[in-house]
Amino acid sequence: MKRNIVNIGIVGFGTVGSGLVSILLDPKSELSKKLGFDLRIKRIADKDTTRDRGITLPPGLLTHDVSTIVEDPEIDIVVELVGGTTFAKDIILKAIKAGKQVVTANKALLALEGNEVFEAAGKMGVDVGFEASVAGGIPIIKVMKEGLVANRIQSVYGIINGTANFILSKMTEEGASFNDVLAEAQRLGYAEADPTFDVEGVDSAHKLAILASLAFGIPLSYHSQYVEGISRITPLDIAFASEFGYKIKLLGIAKSDGHEVELRVHPTMLPRDQMLAKVDGVFNALYIESDAVGPTMYYGRGAGARPTGSAVLADIVDIARNLRHGITARVPAFGRPANEPFKVRKMSDVTSCYYFRFSVHDKPGVLSKISGVLGQHDISIESVIQKGRKEGGSVPLVILTHEAVEHNVKTALEEIRRLSVVEADAMMIRVEGANGR
Amino acid sequence: MKRNIVNIGIVGFGTVGSGLVSILLDPKSELSKKLGFDLRIKRIADKDTTRDRGITLPPGLLTHDVSTIVEDPEIDIVVELVGGTTFAKDIILKAIKAGKQVVTANKALLALEGNEVFEAAGKMGVDVGFEASVAGGIPIIKVMKEGLVANRIQSVYGIINGTANFILSKMTEEGASFNDVLAEAQRLGYAEADPTFDVEGVDSAHKLAILASLAFGIPLSYHSQYVEGISRITPLDIAFASEFGYKIKLLGIAKSDGHEVELRVHPTMLPRDQMLAKVDGVFNALYIESDAVGPTMYYGRGAGARPTGSAVLADIVDIARNLRHGITARVPAFGRPANEPFKVRKMSDVTSCYYFRFSVHDKPGVLSKISGVLGQHDISIESVIQKGRKEGGSVPLVILTHEAVEHNVKTALEEIRRLSVVEADAMMIRVEGANGR
Repeated sequence: MKRNIVNIGIVGFGTVGSGLVSILLDPKSELSKKLGFDLRIKRIADKDTTRDRGITLPPGLLTHDVSTIVEDPEIDIVVELVGGTTFAKDIILKAIKAGKQVVTANKALLALEGNEVFEAAGKMGVDVGFEASVAGGIPIIKVMKEGLVANRIQSVYGIINGTANFILSKMTEEGASFNDVLAEAQRLGYAEADPTFDVEGVDSAHKLAILASLAFGIPLSYHSQYVEGISRITPLDIAFASEFGYKIKLLGIAKSDGHEVELRVHPTMLPRDQMLAKVDGVFNALYIESDAVGPTMYYGRGAGARPTGSAVLADIVDIARNLRHGITARVPAFGRPANEPFKVRKMSDVTSCYYFRFSVHDKPGVLSKISGVLGQHDISIESVIQKGRKEGGSVPLVILTHEAVEHNVKTALEEIRRLSVVEADAMMIRVEGANGR
Repeated sequence: MKRNIVNIGIVGFGTVGSGLVSILLDPKSELSKKLGFDLRIKRIADKDTTRDRGITLPPGLLTHDVSTIVEDPEIDIVVELVGGTTFAKDIILKAIKAGKQVVTANKALLALEGNEVFEAAGKMGVDVGFEASVAGGIPIIKVMKEGLVANRIQSVYGIINGTANFILSKMTEEGASFNDVLAEAQRLGYAEADPTFDVEGVDSAHKLAILASLAFGIPLSYHSQYVEGISRITPLDIAFASEFGYKIKLLGIAKSDGHEVELRVHPTMLPRDQMLAKVDGVFNALYIESDAVGPTMYYGRGAGARPTGSAVLADIVDIARNLRHGITARVPAFGRPANEPFKVRKMSDVTSCYYFRFSVHDKPGVLSKISGVLGQHDISIESVIQKGRKEGGSVPLVILTHEAVEHNVKTALEEIRRLSVVEADAMMIRVEGANGR
């Protein structure tokens, strides 16, 4: 006997909560007709029960009191949309203990506390859906858990922060500085007053931890990741990258060679004809390489009320379709047991191609000195651009390298910085896909 | 009590069959560990049981006799990979009648006979998986059935034939003619000896019918579609398109305005900065516009043994995960009942922007005559290129229009063809996305 109603309790009625509720209550979405059963919002909890969100709710639906959701035996699915890692964790763990299914959009919580959350859910045999936690409306979690199940995933390259991608895209289009574009992004509402999480790679790293668990079946490993943001990228570097045929993107990169995994977030130069390099503005995209299907890419909006609401609702429907048949945990949280033994490669052992920009005295022999140091550290040069002539002044010297090991690069850059012909700090940006990936 | 083995019978051991079996038997894919249960190939049927496919099968697995699969009560899932629409249909209907689940990669069969197949499956309460029927390894069926369930899909634009996209990409890169590139594609194995299905849009139309049912919940409507191929596209048109900032792609287009649907396959000019325009070579991509998530795009290989095998296996796993819990038909075949009342817009009523290329006598007043005829039929000009000067000879005159109605365009072109200053036939290509989609 299949159930005809599945009851939802929503905790958090902010941007994403409003997006979700607006879709659920929109008669045009014809959800009941599509599904053959009803998804009923039994209760919504938020600390603000008076603000006008442009949505007309049936009376009595909105409450201050989260316990009326977590403790209501009729509520099947608890949707956590409050954000943060303390109160949200408390709600989720209580819901799990009460035997409820959970849906959350909270990437920070999952990245930092996910192993505990999924262990608790596993013990209770309940599902925790998190489609909305990565890349907003792109159904990337379902794709990785189910669509690519036949594949061993080798690498994931993600543009998973719309703010950072907007800033880099604008800098590329307009030749503008990081600070100017950041200010514009803040005016447009694409960047927060404190933009640290977005521009310094923290948000991307939250999402990358989740993607890596999906890709490789490993526990969530946020703290093992290398994280570097985009605030030091200059229009000059973007222009030189362009001259070499590259674009600069903030990427989350997860790779596995079967022995070690690489987990890193940093600005990355990509050949401009690579599909991922073509993703501009606030859009997100995931480029995944796997053994059966080869490369695939998934593109869409990574944030916003309705795109994120769409992902939350996809999880709700998925779980509800199970509940109707009286089953849960039909698919493991990460598509398979996420308990593979693994080792994260130290950043100093990573190999990559590199872009260097030095500010050098414009006199003969400079390139020879610099390339000499690089050569001593097993770093071979792929191409060089030396621009301008400034009698007695300093000019940029830009070098692209073949594959080299990160710790050799660090050591070489230290030595080059000490050369008397080199001024100020050197810029270094990692390059991916130079060999035609 | 969950089952620990799900038995598969495979009918057809050609390219896709070999791809599927190679993934299933590859110890590196660690499927059992991932799934927590075993997928066992109980039997494979093919008319050729001797050819070396580079795969070592356990003895006794391969047979001539399809009935040993369809009639074996132990076989849970019948995988149809023979292609064609007669024998394949027979196998599938027999399997359904025997209460078996079915997985197929057969787009032609589904497009032409799918309504009957899904009706039979519905009556028996069994599943028919068809992830591999559209866009090969891209998990687009699951995305549309489940990932985008919260959305009302407004339009689907697909590059869903790798051969045609390879040919157009090569023509664009090299300025080569259709026939020369076709010959090269045939040498490379990207095009068949008889390329009609690929280059004349038939294969794309098969896939578009399936996509339209997924997008709009309508019955499969292959015969209501407008279909036009790429064989008449010339390097000259590609060059002019480029001059206007466009690329030419063979698209499958399905749109709904809530009243009528448009279902059409034809060469299409797309602004070159549109994501879909950036998809080159044998790759496929689907660009979907929907009300909650906005635009999303899905990109990957649309054909090949292992990409298609990956899609077939994703369906098998999906169904097996249900069977373990003793359930079937957890999600309707098209994600919802595909019985919406609908009306296909007549091609003559479609509105679009247009590209025209005329061959005209190089003398004063020609543009005035042509634009006069266009104006009489409510077709306004967006831009014009007139190239070259050839005393007494003919030169190309190229026009891009604003939105116009197809039947007005046809009538106007008839009249223009009759003008004494116009030579030979006029070329017409439809333009999408000119308004910044």
